[in-house]
Formats: sequence, C-alpha cells, structure tokens
Amino acid sequence: MSQPKIPDEQWAQVIEKDGGPITYKKIPVPKPRPDEVLVKIKYSGVCHTDLHALMGDWPLERKTPVVGGHEGAGEVVAKGEMVTKVEVGDYAGIKWLNSSCMSCTFCMQADESICPHAQLSGYTVDGTFQEYAVANAAHAARIPKGTDLAAIAPILCAGLTVYKGLKESGARPGQTVAIVGAGGGLGSLAIQYAKAMGLHVLAIDGGAEKGEFCKELGAMAYIDFTTAKDLVAEVKAAAGDEGLGPHAVLLLAPREKPFQQATGYVRSRGTVVCIGMPAGAMVSMPVFDTVTRMITVKGSYVGNRQDTQEAIDFFVRGLIKAPYKIVGLSEVQNVFDMMKESKIVGRYVVDMTK
Amino acid sequence: MSQPKIPDEQWAQVIEKDGGPITYKKIPVPKPRPDEVLVKIKYSGVCHTDLHALMGDWPLERKTPVVGGHEGAGEVVAKGEMVTKVEVGDYAGIKWLNSSCMSCTFCMQADESICPHAQLSGYTVDGTFQEYAVANAAHAARIPKGTDLAAIAPILCAGLTVYKGLKESGARPGQTVAIVGAGGGLGSLAIQYAKAMGLHVLAIDGGAEKGEFCKELGAMAYIDFTTAKDLVAEVKAAAGDEGLGPHAVLLLAPREKPFQQATGYVRSRGTVVCIGMPAGAMVSMPVFDTVTRMITVKGSYVGNRQDTQEAIDFFVRGLIKAPYKIVGLSEVQNVFDMMKESKIVGRYVVDMTK
Amino acid sequence: MSQPKIPDEQWAQVIEKDGGPITYKKIPVPKPRPDEVLVKIKYSGVCHTDLHALMGDWPLERKTPVVGGHEGAGEVVAKGEMVTKVEVGDYAGIKWLNSSCMSCTFCMQADESICPHAQLSGYTVDGTFQEYAVANAAHAARIPKGTDLAAIAPILCAGLTVYKGLKESGARPGQTVAIVGAGGGLGSLAIQYAKAMGLHVLAIDGGAEKGEFCKELGAMAYIDFTTAKDLVAEVKAAAGDEGLGPHAVLLLAPREKPFQQATGYVRSRGTVVCIGMPAGAMVSMPVFDTVTRMITVKGSYVGNRQDTQEAIDFFVRGLIKAPYKIVGLSEVQNVFDMMKESKIVGRYVVDMTK
Amino acid sequence: MSQPKIPDEQWAQVIEKDGGPITYKKIPVPKPRPDEVLVKIKYSGVCHTDLHALMGDWPLERKTPVVGGHEGAGEVVAKGEMVTKVEVGDYAGIKWLNSSCMSCTFCMQADESICPHAQLSGYTVDGTFQEYAVANAAHAARIPKGTDLAAIAPILCAGLTVYKGLKESGARPGQTVAIVGAGGGLGSLAIQYAKAMGLHVLAIDGGAEKGEFCKELGAMAYIDFTTAKDLVAEVKAAAGDEGLGPHAVLLLAPREKPFQQATGYVRSRGTVVCIGMPAGAMVSMPVFDTVTRMITVKGSYVGNRQDTQEAIDFFVRGLIKAPYKIVGLSEVQNVFDMMKESKIVGRYVVDMTK
Repeated sequence: MSQPKIPDEQWAQVIEKDGGPITYKKIPVPKPRPDEVLVKIKYSGVCHTDLHALMGDWPLERKTPVVGGHEGAGEVVAKGEMVTKVEVGDYAGIKWLNSSCMSCTFCMQADESICPHAQLSGYTVDGTFQEYAVANAAHAARIPKGTDLAAIAPILCAGLTVYKGLKESGARPGQTVAIVGAGGGLGSLAIQYAKAMGLHVLAIDGGAEKGEFCKELGAMAYIDFTTAKDLVAEVKAAAGDEGLGPHAVLLLAPREKPFQQATGYVRSRGTVVCIGMPAGAMVSMPVFDTVTRMITVKGSYVGNRQDTQEAIDFFVRGLIKAPYKIVGLSEVQNVFDMMKESKIVGRYVVDMTK
Repeated sequence: MSQPKIPDEQWAQVIEKDGGPITYKKIPVPKPRPDEVLVKIKYSGVCHTDLHALMGDWPLERKTPVVGGHEGAGEVVAKGEMVTKVEVGDYAGIKWLNSSCMSCTFCMQADESICPHAQLSGYTVDGTFQEYAVANAAHAARIPKGTDLAAIAPILCAGLTVYKGLKESGARPGQTVAIVGAGGGLGSLAIQYAKAMGLHVLAIDGGAEKGEFCKELGAMAYIDFTTAKDLVAEVKAAAGDEGLGPHAVLLLAPREKPFQQATGYVRSRGTVVCIGMPAGAMVSMPVFDTVTRMITVKGSYVGNRQDTQEAIDFFVRGLIKAPYKIVGLSEVQNVFDMMKESKIVGRYVVDMTK
Repeated sequence: MSQPKIPDEQWAQVIEKDGGPITYKKIPVPKPRPDEVLVKIKYSGVCHTDLHALMGDWPLERKTPVVGGHEGAGEVVAKGEMVTKVEVGDYAGIKWLNSSCMSCTFCMQADESICPHAQLSGYTVDGTFQEYAVANAAHAARIPKGTDLAAIAPILCAGLTVYKGLKESGARPGQTVAIVGAGGGLGSLAIQYAKAMGLHVLAIDGGAEKGEFCKELGAMAYIDFTTAKDLVAEVKAAAGDEGLGPHAVLLLAPREKPFQQATGYVRSRGTVVCIGMPAGAMVSMPVFDTVTRMITVKGSYVGNRQDTQEAIDFFVRGLIKAPYKIVGLSEVQNVFDMMKESKIVGRYVVDMTK
Repeated sequence: MSQPKIPDEQWAQVIEKDGGPITYKKIPVPKPRPDEVLVKIKYSGVCHTDLHALMGDWPLERKTPVVGGHEGAGEVVAKGEMVTKVEVGDYAGIKWLNSSCMSCTFCMQADESICPHAQLSGYTVDGTFQEYAVANAAHAARIPKGTDLAAIAPILCAGLTVYKGLKESGARPGQTVAIVGAGGGLGSLAIQYAKAMGLHVLAIDGGAEKGEFCKELGAMAYIDFTTAKDLVAEVKAAAGDEGLGPHAVLLLAPREKPFQQATGYVRSRGTVVCIGMPAGAMVSMPVFDTVTRMITVKGSYVGNRQDTQEAIDFFVRGLIKAPYKIVGLSEVQNVFDMMKESKIVGRYVVDMTK
C-alpha cells in the first residue's frame, strides 16, 4: 500500500479579524511534530462555539489568524516519530481540546479539559476547517474504521459535551433528568444519550414543534416555557414521584433565565449542571434553599479522552442519531450567517472536498 | 437501681411571639410517645439559629409557642414501649433534627435532614431549653457514659454542621480547605475537624486577634479580609501549589459577600460549600467560569444520624475542643442580647439546674 | 368505605422440621404491633432460598416452626397506631428483610440488609406463605395501585437482588457486564435490569436453549460453558474492546467453579460481584493478579429499602418481564420437589386464594 | 550557570542472570529520548521487589541484562527536545512505573499503573542502581528543591504503595484500619500515612519489639499474631465499636495466612486491600459470608502520578519519617543477602557516590 500523497498547499477557512467574515483561502499544509498526527479531514461540524471564535466575544484569548473548526473527522496520513499507538490509515477525530500538558495535576487526574496549558482547536491553534490538520496523537479521538465520518463529526464536540454533562450530573439509571434547551442541537443529542444511559427525560424548550421532536426522540414529557404559567410547578408535576422534582437538570439554553429557575425545581440533593454559556450570564440561587435542600450547582465543560471514546462508542453502537446537513468548505460563512439569525435546525457539517 | 423520679412540672424558656423576648416559665413535663425517649437535659448550647427562631426571620414556619433550644445533652429517664435500642440511664443528645419520617426517599437514603416531614427541635417541636425534653429514639444522639455533657453540647449542632460540610466538600486528606468565618463559633470547630481529617486549613476572617486564634487552632495560613487588597489573589497565593487555589471552601460567614467571592479563588474542579445562611443572601457566579473551570457550589445542611455519631466520636477521642461559658437556664435572653450585638466569643451553654 | 373483615384463622405453609416436608395447615391470623402493618397476601413467589430454609442447610439459625415465603405482594388491611406513612388499602410487598433495628451504624447508613438485628421473612419471622402476614411498616415495599401483584412478586426478592448487584458492580452505562447463570431465574431478570441500565450483557450459562433465551432478552453475546474450550479466552474475546474483558461480572450460578474463573476474565480494575451462594463454596484468586490488575471481588446481598423502590419502579415502567406460573398455596411442597430436581424454568408464584 | 558535565561511562549494578548475584560494573551513560529526562541519581532505596527481580521468581517477564533499582531520587541533568514541563536542575524521582503508553483506556483514566504497555524500572527497563538513569518526563516524580533525597527515596515506592492502598481502602477520616505487617518497612510507613489521613490504626505483626515500634509510630492498638489465641476475636475486640471490626484491612505481610484471615475480622461492608504479594499465594474467603456481610476484597498496586505527588507532599510536610541506613552502590548484593535472611529493620538506601 502506497502512502497517501500530501500536497504542500490546501484550502482553509481562516479567522483573520474579530467579527469576521471568515476567509476562504489557500494556506500551507502543516507538518506534524514528533508527538502529533496529520489528519486528512473529511468532514467538520460547525458549532456555535466557532461563531464565538469568529466574533471574539468570549473572555478567552484567541490566536489570530487562526483556522476555525473543532469537530473534524478524517484519516491519519502522517505521524511524528514518537507516535506509536496511532497508525497511518486509522480514522481519527480532532476536537475542541487539541492538546494538554499531560503533566499538571489536572492532566494527572484525567481532567485534561481544565489543564491551564490546554490548546483549543480553531481558537488557540489551527482547527479543522482545512483539508489537513495536525493533532496531538494522545488527544486525537479514535474512530473505528467504517464509521460514517460525516455523521460522527457532531459527536466530537456536541455529543461529547452533553454526554459528559450527563455523567457529571450524577443521575443514575432509572432517575429523571430535565434538559433545558432539549429541542436544540445539543439538546437533541442529550435526550438520546440520556435514554441510552437508562435515564428518564423531561424536555424543556419553547414551541409545540420542538415538543413533538423531543417526544419522538424519547422524552417522557415536554414543558413549553413559552406557554407555562408556573414553570417550576409544571416541571415538578411532570417529573412524577409526588412532585419531588427531577434528580438532575442540564442547562443547555443560550439564555440566562433558566439558570435562575433550575434550582427551584431540581429535587433536594439534586444537581444542576451548567453547560451552555450565554454571553455574560450569571447563575444565582438563594443561600437558604441551597443549604436546607442541599442542592448542587456545577459546571461541566468538554469531556476528557476517555469520555470521548465512550461518547463515540454510544454512537457506533447505533444509539445516537444526529440530524445534519452537508455543505462545502467554501460555505462556512453562510452557515454562520444562518446561525446568527437562529435559523438552523440540526447541525451543519462541512465537506472538505467541496 | 430505682427509677429516677420525674416531676410533673418544670422550668423552660418559651418563644411566645416573634421578636421575643423569650419567656422563662413553668410548663408541664412532656411524656414520651411509644417511639420516644424522655431526656433529662443537663446542658444545652445556645446557637445563632435559636435567635432566628426567636426573631421569626427565616422563611420557614415555626410552631408558637415553642420551647427553644436544639443542642441538649442529658440522660434518658424514660422511654416509650417500642424503644429497644436505648436504655434508661444512657446519655443522649437532642439536636436540630428531632425526628424524620424514616419512610420517604430521602430517609431511605440516610438523608433524613432533608426529609419533608422532619421535625426541628426548638422550632417545629419543643426543644432543649427545658429540664425534660422528648426526642425520637432513633434520632437521639448516643453519647458515651462519662462524657462531659456541657462540653459536648455545642458538638450536637455546631460541630455536626461543620463536620458534615467538610464531608460534603469532598476534600481528601492532604488537600487544602479555605474556611470563611474561621474565627467564629462554627469556624473554630471547623478548623479542628479539618485538621483531624488530615486537611490543611486556610483561615479567612477579619482582624488580627482572630488570626492568632485560628493559627493556634492549627490553620496553616490566615487571610484578614479587612486588610486584604486583593482577597482572591491572596487566598490563591496562600494555598500554595502554584496558585491553583484551595480544593474546597467552607462558607460559614454571616455576610453575603464571601458567597460571591469564593468561586473566584477555589481551585478548578473544586467545591464551594454553603453552610452559613445570611438572611436573604444569594450565591451567584459567572456561568463562563463555572463551566470552563468545572466548579461546584453546593449547600450542606445538618448531618444525618451517622454523621452525628462520627462528629461525637472525634470529640470523645479528644480531637475537638470547643471553648464555652456556662449560664443558668433563666439567663437565655441575656445570651440572645449579647448575640444580637455580636459580643459573643465562643459558645454559651445553659445549665438546666440553675 | 368499610374496613375489610379480617378472620381469626387462615391457611399457611409452615416449616416444622429441617428437611421438610412443609406443612399446609390452619393457624391464627397475626396482629400487627404499633409499627407494623397487616398485609392480605395475594401472591407470593417461591424462591430457592425458601428451599434452603426448609432444608436447614445454611449456616444461619432459623426459627421453628416458621411460616415460609418472602416474596409476598398484597394489600394492607390493618396497621399499628404508630404507622403514619402507609394506609389501609395501599398495596404492599413483604420481602426477605422483614425488619431491621433502624438504629445501628449500618441502618444509619441505609445498609439495613446487614443490620445484625435484621429479621428475615420465612426464616427468623413468619413469612408470606399465609393469607395474612405482618410486616414492619418502614420496611414493607410500596407498590403502586393497579400493579399486577402476581407478576411483581418475584421482583421483591429475585429482581431486587440482581438490581442491587448491578448497582454494586459499579458498571456504568455503556460498559459490559458478564452474567454467570444468565439463563436462570435470577439471570433472566439480571439481563433485563442490566439492559434498562444502559449496560451491555455477556451471558454465560449452559446449553443452546438458554443461549437463545438470553439473546431474546437482549444479551449481546452468549458463552456456553458446557462447550467452551477456553472459557476465559472466549469471554474476553466476546467482550470486545481488544480483549480487555468485561467491566464487571455477576455471579448468580449455584456452582462453585465460576467463582474461581471470574477473576481470570474480568477487566483490570473491574469488579466481580458474588450473589449466588452455593452451599459451602469458597471464592479464591491469585494474590499476584489481584494486586497487579487491581481487581475487586465483593459480595452483594439483598438491597435496602430505596433499592427496593427503584427495582419496583423499573418493573412498573414495563422494562422488566418475569415469566411465572401460578399454583395454589396448598401446592408449595410440589414446587420444592421440582426445585430439588432443577426442573423449574422461570418462577412459581403462589396464589393465596387457592 | 554552566550545564553539568555528563560522563560517557558510569558504575551500575546489573542483573545478568536469574538468582544473581547482581554485578557491579561500568556501563555507558544512557541518552534521553525526546520525551525523556536524564536524572543524576543521588540515592536509591532497595526494595524487596528488587530481590524478586534478581531471583526471577515472579510470573512476569524481565529484561536481561537489566540495571536494578526503582526508588531513585536525584537531579535532572539533561532532557529530550519534547520535554517542556521539567527543567535541567529540577529534582526528580524515578519509580517502579517508568512509563506507560498514555493512550490506552487505563492511562486515559489515570490508572496508568495497570497499562498493558507499562515499563517497569529495574525490571523491563534499566533502573536506578546507576549514576545516571533515564525516565519518561511525564512519569518522573517531581520533588521540591531542598528535599532530603536520601530520606525521600523509600517514599517513591514503599510510601507510594501504602498511601495508594489506604486511598483504595475507602476508609474515611475517623475510621479504623488494620495493618497486617505493621512493623515492617511498608507497615511503618502505612501507620504514619494512615495517621496523617485521620485514620485510627490497629497494628498486627509478630513479636513484642514490633509492638513497641508500632505504638511509637501512633498505632492505637497492637495484636501479636504469634501469641494471639483467637486472632479474629482479638482484632474485633481491639477495633472497639462493639466488636464490629475495622473498616478496612491492609495486607502487607509476606505470608499467605493473613490473606485467609482478614475477611473474618473486617467489618461488614468493609474492604480488605491486598498489597503484599507472597510468591504463589491465593486469597480466598467463604462465599456465604462475603455475600451476607457484603465484604470487598481488592488488590492495590502502585499509585498513579497524582498519587505519587500526594505521597511526596505528605513527606515534604514532615508527616512521614522512614528510618533508613545508607550504603554505597557497590554494596547492593550485601543488602540482598541480609534481605534473604530477613535481617533488615527499616530501609537501606544506596548512595551513588560511594
């Protein structure tokens, strides 16, 4: 078998200034360092975080210029001399966490996503909106041969994030989790992961159409926040078990209000997991209730490497379906424009060959 | 051995109206129901919660009139016919959690302090500011014979509460916990419990005198919030380990501000435990930091029955000293008056025979 | 609504001497103590443990005479004066753990099944092979109105036991558990609970027929120990994930050999849970492998009260089906005779009205 | 500051054939690969495992010839080009686990000690009985500047191993742990770590002298197995708490018998941790007791990188003292000879400069 031929130049989508637009241009193909692999990207999902990267509206410094994208799936075409556990020809995924130091106390405890030296794809290092991208070999996701690379792309960030959040919630099989923003891209994956984990889902979102969608995906009940008269009371009632409330809440919504409501309906001793990050939002709750009901509020960021492989395993076993539309690499700005206007249902996936 | 003679009447301190004063008067001696014991109270601590009960300023309904007090230590003098595991003559403690239903999902999981049917001593049922008090036999604390009943009284609420908070913090031996309000009644016990649990303590409070006191009790460092220029930076520096911050924070302070600061200096993946309940206080934090640093904020209420026995065991082994002053039962209102003016150092303990 | 009329006498199956046979006779209807309920038993499962009780072959003292049975489902017809959380007319279940002291360190930690003062139905106190049985109100299982009482009877012991074992295994959704004895009464329930908890099941048992049965219930693979050439190697291969082995093993088999094999194929850091109790069996493993592969072997007994309600909840949601045959109360000895000859497939349930 | 000059040749102790003797000879100084550091070893402890390596009596393949030793402390004098988190001049420790793949499911979960690709110092790769040794940078222990390198050497294996075992035991501060072999090298460290972690220690070993030693180190009680009439009963009595037994047991003994006894006296729901590995030993227990008392038996191997830093931190804070004697590098065989005759009290540490 001959080695795949790697060109010197390639097409990429590059963030060159805050606010965009993102620039479609030719750039050199990068070379892997000794501990890196070079991945020929086949597909890359477009995530809301990519838009934050373009707009520069997060309190986190970004490299400029930077190739965007962080949900890339493809095939390893070259590797550094220190790489022994990945082979050329393997399928691999590049995710938000491009690398971490592997030496700090967080990395030593498998919490590499909070490593102070973490590198972020499409943000602090070049990402996956290019034909060939480098990734730290230890952090690249392993994808079994034969997997549909377009379909798995959104699992590498959106799927991983909600799966991690469900793990962090501490909810056990047979318990109930409320998912706020259940009808969106993250939410629809969260419903499916929750079900596959033996949890019962109480979906919360706005509008009847999203309600239908959530129930089709397996939610046992749906609360429409746009029509609810007393959201807290309705969530408690829908959770069953004499109104004790859901055991956990996943906050995926892009608005601040649900962050103030969730501690009102979560069960005593329950856990509210913050995942979505509305710009400038605060989460707050009364001390008295927090103490006397022993409520926990926590943040969950992206998963670690093991979480990634587990999230992929659920997908590979056919338990998770993520609806997506394919566009060409040259069309990324169009996707951002739709995203800004909240016109996107499901996920857009970029095909690098177009 | 003859049974102790139980009188029909006794002296008690009774809350008869919101705002007080508390009334020192003669009332009938109660009779234990089949699952209760009657305890001849020898000493009862006076807790800040008793003042909240008197003032009626908590969002929690109180019985009126009600005998105050919930840190009572004494001897069992009678018991109901269903009680088999406690004998007349045993030492027993009556604590804030007087009883719970033992049948709800929380009780079934040993989280009886959040039982919706819990009865609270000196609040929803008569408490320990009386010579003879009844307690549910399953909930009465077991105290080994020979224990100093005056010295152990504050352990039954203050000691138990901070011990539970330390357990809930998840901090492991060898890790660092910041204690906010370390120089107060709860704080001084928290320092000692933390040390006995193998934790390193970073004490936070106001004033040089409290600093000396905290260090004598074993704190490895003291931060004076009244003189700190940048409290968050100073806490991180004092915690060592390259400024990562303490692994956990215990919030015992009676003011709201520390509740907003703690998430700023707690270590990533660390836990902030709310215990103190300043009237009307909120705890709030930025969603972005909470998520990307994976911070946990949780409330810890009083401990369960097992926690109680463990907290007592630390005391009985001589690892915990609580400075206290003894006054007579008739002087409870004086103690409240000093409390209102924040003039109390250490704990007041009421002697029922005076 | 008039109170149901309770007779003075009733039919029962009574163990009068070791080895049996069990005696079908009339005995007085018991009266509940203040903390007990009287349950009109409708159906009671027949468990292998009942046969051990009859034979007297366990190293655990039994009351004689004693009414057998410990999987009884029925309706509360009377209650003691201290019972407040259960009402006459409620459905209730009586299980192996009839009561516990609720006061020891194990009960205080919700581990009441290992309470040294536990009372066992059909063993140390009269059980459910009678028309009316008493149960401690706090320990009686709550069963929702409308539940099929014949179908749920086996859940009260067999279902609970395997559900608890799965919880104790520590296996998380998405992981693989090997179930040894998967085709038997406990095993077929274990497969279903495991699936409902998001686990992948590797079924181990003997014979092709059991293999078909296990796969119909949802096992992803079946290993026939009667034909396997190298059981350890085959289990590892079937578990996938490059032969690392299953994350956990549930030992339900009535023979000793699997207890020696399981540590050979369980994954490093995995857990082997002993549940079945072959008479006189030992579990043993090489120290070297146990240490260097960090393997855990643990025992799991019956669940606590919360586990019971959770196991029932899975059943009530329709996730668990237990095949059973109904016989009359007078026929219990016939069931034991079939049990001795290993002729039983599925569970026998006794109808008290026959 | 000038770079330290690194010679081409050095003295080393090399295992050249099973059974020994170990050969003191000159060999080339190794060169670090891109992800490795070169450590100028100052001191190296001599562990019983080194004798197993020499004798070749473990069921684990060893490289031949191999430089022995795996408790080395020294200073980094060179590093590979990929190493960014360690600097020349830093203190570093080389331990049993020289490196692991960092990519398997165990490494991804911070269980690198059970990585199937792990390299072991002085066993599968050259160890620390040489003046200059290489180590994987990510796995080398970090030792604060100014630490006594001779004193810390035994912490890098013996200290780490018992600390990990105590963590794995699940014993919480205030609980009781029985340490079998408490008077030996591992045992004396285990007593000190246990105390620093807030545990109460029940020491078990043979002879009055060891008893004195254990009590000096802080054990609350000592059981002499050479004179005990009923070891199980005596351990239970000594553990207090009405004879329930210790919450956990650490098996450090080099004999098999204690592995059969421990499940007899451990508390119900307690944990027996196997650490010592007597050649060919089995651990076994009755299934009936294991199940009905819900006992856990598990193996604990060496700690991971985080455990290492924690074990070092306890030492650096002055909480752990390991008595040791210093000999020159040329004298290693003498130490082995004494070890074979069980003549060693405390630990021998090799000084590389002698």
